[in-house]
Amino acid sequence: IIYSFPYRLWQIYIPKIKLRIENIHKHILEGKDKVPFPAIWGHEGAGTIESIGEGVTTVKPGDKVLMFPLPECRECSSCLHPKSNFCLKESILPPTGLMLDGTSRFTCRGRKIYHLYGTSTFTEYTVVHEIAVGKIDDDAPMDTVCILSCEVPTGFGAVFNIAKVTPGSTCVVFGLGGIGSAVLMACKASGASRIIGVDIKEEKFPRARTLGVTDCLNPQKLKKPVQEVVVEMTGKGADFAFEAIGLIDTMVATLESCHPSYGVGVIIGLAPTNSQLIFDPMLLLSGRTLKGGALGSESCIPKMVTDYLQKKINIDPLITHKLPFESINKAFELLQEGMHRSSVKVGNCEKWFRGQQ
Amino acid sequence: IIYSFPYRLWQIYIPKIKLRIENIHKHILEGKDKVPFPAIWGHEGAGTIESIGEGVTTVKPGDKVLMFPLPECRECSSCLHPKSNFCLKESILPPTGLMLDGTSRFTCRGRKIYHLYGTSTFTEYTVVHEIAVGKIDDDAPMDTVCILSCEVPTGFGAVFNIAKVTPGSTCVVFGLGGIGSAVLMACKASGASRIIGVDIKEEKFPRARTLGVTDCLNPQKLKKPVQEVVVEMTGKGADFAFEAIGLIDTMVATLESCHPSYGVGVIIGLAPTNSQLIFDPMLLLSGRTLKGGALGSESCIPKMVTDYLQKKINIDPLITHKLPFESINKAFELLQEGMHRSSVKVGNCEKWFRGQQ
Repeated sequence: IIYSFPYRLWQIYIPKIKLRIENIHKHILEGKDKVPFPAIWGHEGAGTIESIGEGVTTVKPGDKVLMFPLPECRECSSCLHPKSNFCLKESILPPTGLMLDGTSRFTCRGRKIYHLYGTSTFTEYTVVHEIAVGKIDDDAPMDTVCILSCEVPTGFGAVFNIAKVTPGSTCVVFGLGGIGSAVLMACKASGASRIIGVDIKEEKFPRARTLGVTDCLNPQKLKKPVQEVVVEMTGKGADFAFEAIGLIDTMVATLESCHPSYGVGVIIGLAPTNSQLIFDPMLLLSGRTLKGGALGSESCIPKMVTDYLQKKINIDPLITHKLPFESINKAFELLQEGMHRSSVKVGNCEKWFRGQQ
Repeated sequence: IIYSFPYRLWQIYIPKIKLRIENIHKHILEGKDKVPFPAIWGHEGAGTIESIGEGVTTVKPGDKVLMFPLPECRECSSCLHPKSNFCLKESILPPTGLMLDGTSRFTCRGRKIYHLYGTSTFTEYTVVHEIAVGKIDDDAPMDTVCILSCEVPTGFGAVFNIAKVTPGSTCVVFGLGGIGSAVLMACKASGASRIIGVDIKEEKFPRARTLGVTDCLNPQKLKKPVQEVVVEMTGKGADFAFEAIGLIDTMVATLESCHPSYGVGVIIGLAPTNSQLIFDPMLLLSGRTLKGGALGSESCIPKMVTDYLQKKINIDPLITHKLPFESINKAFELLQEGMHRSSVKVGNCEKWFRGQQ
């Protein structure tokens, strides 16, 4: 079904925002992503509609909604293609920090404040396009389903839509954080017979095992590169491999972990801007496939909320902390502690951010 | 159907070998591929069986056959997988120069001579494994169908099996040599509505047009990078892009020519050993796919010979020269003249080769 959207504006109200700080924000913190500043960050979010602009028809004040950092316009070549979800109208590559009409809706003491990915959820009120939200069930717990705004659909989309994991297959997941956990949940749901989880933070292994991982590997405790160990464990390589970290080294390891003739590697980790992926093209010549993707299919997100309420999927294990808005910097610290690079240099961006608290 | 092969040896006789010198040999000439020397080169070939070894059952003396540089054992995980053709038993990555039992069948004045990809067709007699040949029709013209040994199935396989080009799609083909021409023939047969051919040798354009190319681009005459021109010509990028040259730059251009959300890039050009493909992983994050492949499905080759005889496919335009064995060095020179890098440094390998003439 192809809808036509008027691209008018509206406002939504977020009574108590749940924090999720993904790699996207980490790269901004580190100053590696070219996001305009000053900006209101936050790309995932659940909220209640406060008011709507002229011509908005799909939601009304009082509706509960989830926000889509990668909305689908249903009009561009990407949205009209059956195998694509990456709308070209509200592209996040690179983020402009502006609405589609080239303006911002935020100011602070007369100074323009930029948006982030058209959502800007680290705030009580935000302004987004109609296509950037989807109405969800009224009884949805907002502080839980907010992770269905990006994390879970990204992981599920990588497995169900991009890799199309098959029953009985062998999968390897690099990174057992939020997105990696969603990936392995989907691998298990797809009937994968063996799921190898890779992380250097072993405290993530127990949760990973409850979600379906059959083997856990800590590359720092192996005597040889982890991709060689995966190849030995699987005979010749995994059927499907996923990179859910955002590091160049693990992206190459993902490809090398795949079976040489039919292995499919999927990159969903967000590498810093202007990174270079470097590998021998012979890795592809024998038949490997390398794909990428992000954010699943946003139009499916309201359905995922219903599935959660009906206990068809369980996203509760993916939530490790719930913090009030005032503790946002504590949330950033917790995120960085859980990241793969234990030492993260925080640049001026964070100082600006702290200055606004 | 799964066959069991005994891996016994047999001999075939090639009365008048047709020369095809692909990138494979070019890289050997340039000393970039680690092939053991001295060796009998030649990876494509048609011939007549002279004698068979003990236990050989699929062919008999007098049979006409095509040789498979990448035979299929029908036993390994690759051969048993529905989406793979890259047999792991007789791997060409890297070539060992030996038969599967670790020995050579060739000597010259008592000195061991190595094989090439298990075929070694630049000779009157060669010794190959049973799985490295397929019986073809008795009335097949050997000096034409020999290109069905690698070139044509590589191009056809890339389009039909790897990319799965769809009717009405837009394709771009980098390199309009033998394999590139086979690619565009297959794109046309798949119903592609627009096929953009890219080459710096404009003398290849007329043949390309007769084979189905709708637009020809010479990157040396463009004011901006060819991938930018392709993106402009196609709106946002091609549905499918093929690299049939073997250069890192054109491999990256192939990926960048694809539509960001659903474009599929296929690399079939053979890069020199230890090359490094370098690109921004963000190119994948929006949804592009990068694949590779070689040699199509060898088990389909005898069927392709029959299709040629029944005029279902026409491979005649792919043959530019026919030379006797004595003119093999002239053939190498013609190949190099047609290559994309006009100045090719020829290393010591060729000297050794010339010395054997």
